[in-house]
Amino acid sequence: MRLTPATELEYRCKQLQTLMAAQGLDAVLIAQNADLFYFTGTIQSGCLYVPQAGQPLYLVRRDAARARMESGLKEIRPFSSPKDIPAILADSSYPVPKRIGMEFDVLPVGLFERYRKVFSDAEFLDASPLVRQVRMIKSHYEIHLLQDAADQVHAVHLRAQEAIREGMTDLELAAELEYTARTHGHLGLIRMRVFNGEMMFGHTFSGVDSAVPAYTDTPLGGMGPSPCFGQGASHKPIGRHEPIIIDFAGNCDGYLVDQTRVFCIGGLSDRLRRGFDDMLKVQELMKELAVEGVPWGELYDRCHTLAVDMGYADSFMGARGSQVSFIGHGVGVEIDEYPYIARGFRDQTLQVGMVWAFEPKVVFPGEGAVGIENTFYLSRDGLKQLTRSDDALVIL
Amino acid sequence: MRLTPATELEYRCKQLQTLMAAQGLDAVLIAQNADLFYFTGTIQSGCLYVPQAGQPLYLVRRDAARARMESGLKEIRPFSSPKDIPAILADSSYPVPKRIGMEFDVLPVGLFERYRKVFSDAEFLDASPLVRQVRMIKSHYEIHLLQDAADQVHAVHLRAQEAIREGMTDLELAAELEYTARTHGHLGLIRMRVFNGEMMFGHTFSGVDSAVPAYTDTPLGGMGPSPCFGQGASHKPIGRHEPIIIDFAGNCDGYLVDQTRVFCIGGLSDRLRRGFDDMLKVQELMKELAVEGVPWGELYDRCHTLAVDMGYADSFMGARGSQVSFIGHGVGVEIDEYPYIARGFRDQTLQVGMVWAFEPKVVFPGEGAVGIENTFYLSRDGLKQLTRSDDALVIL
Repeated sequence: MRLTPATELEYRCKQLQTLMAAQGLDAVLIAQNADLFYFTGTIQSGCLYVPQAGQPLYLVRRDAARARMESGLKEIRPFSSPKDIPAILADSSYPVPKRIGMEFDVLPVGLFERYRKVFSDAEFLDASPLVRQVRMIKSHYEIHLLQDAADQVHAVHLRAQEAIREGMTDLELAAELEYTARTHGHLGLIRMRVFNGEMMFGHTFSGVDSAVPAYTDTPLGGMGPSPCFGQGASHKPIGRHEPIIIDFAGNCDGYLVDQTRVFCIGGLSDRLRRGFDDMLKVQELMKELAVEGVPWGELYDRCHTLAVDMGYADSFMGARGSQVSFIGHGVGVEIDEYPYIARGFRDQTLQVGMVWAFEPKVVFPGEGAVGIENTFYLSRDGLKQLTRSDDALVIL
Repeated sequence: MRLTPATELEYRCKQLQTLMAAQGLDAVLIAQNADLFYFTGTIQSGCLYVPQAGQPLYLVRRDAARARMESGLKEIRPFSSPKDIPAILADSSYPVPKRIGMEFDVLPVGLFERYRKVFSDAEFLDASPLVRQVRMIKSHYEIHLLQDAADQVHAVHLRAQEAIREGMTDLELAAELEYTARTHGHLGLIRMRVFNGEMMFGHTFSGVDSAVPAYTDTPLGGMGPSPCFGQGASHKPIGRHEPIIIDFAGNCDGYLVDQTRVFCIGGLSDRLRRGFDDMLKVQELMKELAVEGVPWGELYDRCHTLAVDMGYADSFMGARGSQVSFIGHGVGVEIDEYPYIARGFRDQTLQVGMVWAFEPKVVFPGEGAVGIENTFYLSRDGLKQLTRSDDALVIL
């Protein structure tokens, strides 16, 4: 367990304030757990008031003592409702904000209305893009946490080699791997920003189930254990000669990495084997191309073109009709951060400090899916790989 | 795995339409996973359009084939964006809605704005209270699912008696119990409606950690594994003569029950022992009082008064400064449903079909917490208990 250093919090706040100044925002009010953790070091209920200049005020409803213990911020104030904020600002001689940013992509309408009533003369704007831009550039401190998360998924990878046996269900295997992760300090939780985003450690499934599409915006979906959570592992028994996908997200002190490996008992068909090898080629191309300044969309296009040229137009990143328009996604305190290695995105470029999972996969309905996923970091010295299990297909 | 019967879905929709008519709503647009599951039987991405009269339309972006397979609804339409809705309504000869309800307590501002632009002449209102009122009355089908969820937590209870040993950490114990739950079909997920609500199976903690308050609106909080998720089990080792709290939520096919039991190695101090016995008395009082027509707030007041009279004014439902204003909460597809057995709520009364967890607990900072929690169902024949592990303190 680590407490986020105060210097990290100060730097993050300054970065946000720089973006706020460029957008003419007087204040940003941060309320969502992942953002609160990033900017305060804890997730006590309440909100963080970030002025365009000066110290942020952490307004805490519950629990103030823990906020003081866990957060490196200097200004922590008791708070019971948005109505308290004007008096708190006045008390700190902070001006009344005229242009206020909030997290429109995650903040519920009802809660937003309560804040809007308090500042009825102010203009409210979406601050999520700014928050996400700050979060997308990782510090050395964050990279260390991500490396520890990579160790967790490596422990899961090693455990999978012992645990997989013919006839066990995908869900039984998932339970074994989750247990391993938890005993290696996994927080259990995978935070996902998108509305309705829900994920349990990742996805473990085999054979035909690995090729079933789901409601999730992911290349593979899975049947899941129930229509009420129709993704990931189901009660399907694991058979011979079918791909067993272990797409697992580590979580060390709130920081996530994402890794996918393919296992099988007794080898795969030629088509699946070739598909797997070809996805490694897509990963190799990404590694060559991923340098500072490359547009996210160009990286996507080049890798997508290679996959199509190898014959996967109808199977790359999902089967025809269920294909997703990305190959990679940023990871950090949420599993769906910037950058998006996705179609479009011509203006956003790779920058030093970005971390993303890259997951070229092919899906053959009725047969199964194969592919690879690793989490990468663009350092000053070029691309580094954070996840560290052997890429090779594991034949048991 | 069960598919929600079409007759259930039809009945639920009719109940909602009755409430919509009373409120003068022309349509309700449902977008959140828990509500989608309840009204469609699946959670494909998209939304459910419920007109005040006539068939609901399930508008599915992804995955349409699974929606057809898993949902008992008749009208399933492809959908890519809110902009498509007017044409879909016209195609079904449905009138343009003038008063539209949406889930204001969970719907993000950004997504809401997209819907609002499409129906720029309409008035939008909060439909969450209506949705939650329909959901709070459980059918016999739902009670069967809740009974199966109670079996899961009973398996966890039995496993705890074998697994607990001196010196293991709370997190190690939690991992064992989660494994047991998963191998008994637990979906892994606990859905919580409140903004920032996050829960992993429940809370497992011991001794002083059981008395640490957290940001969560729960009587007990716990240190948690990290400031990034500061609730529940931490790395604290379990010692002798301290309460070990296992507050565990079962999840069978999306339906949740909540149960808390206290364990210890070698017995508890007189104060804790007496506190435990007294919380059983609070539970007994609730069982006597819980009949149709009793206001939620009255049930709370009577039980709260008993606790205060027994000397727990500063420890009941949290230590002084961290006390919560409820003793019970509805459960179903979310862990925080109606009814609230809470302060206030004079106008809402207990009705046949309601299901709630009741959790009288006392907290002694620096020492620990004790209490009990069971999930109850108000049937036509009176109060029934769904969770079924022995209430007694388990001394190992």
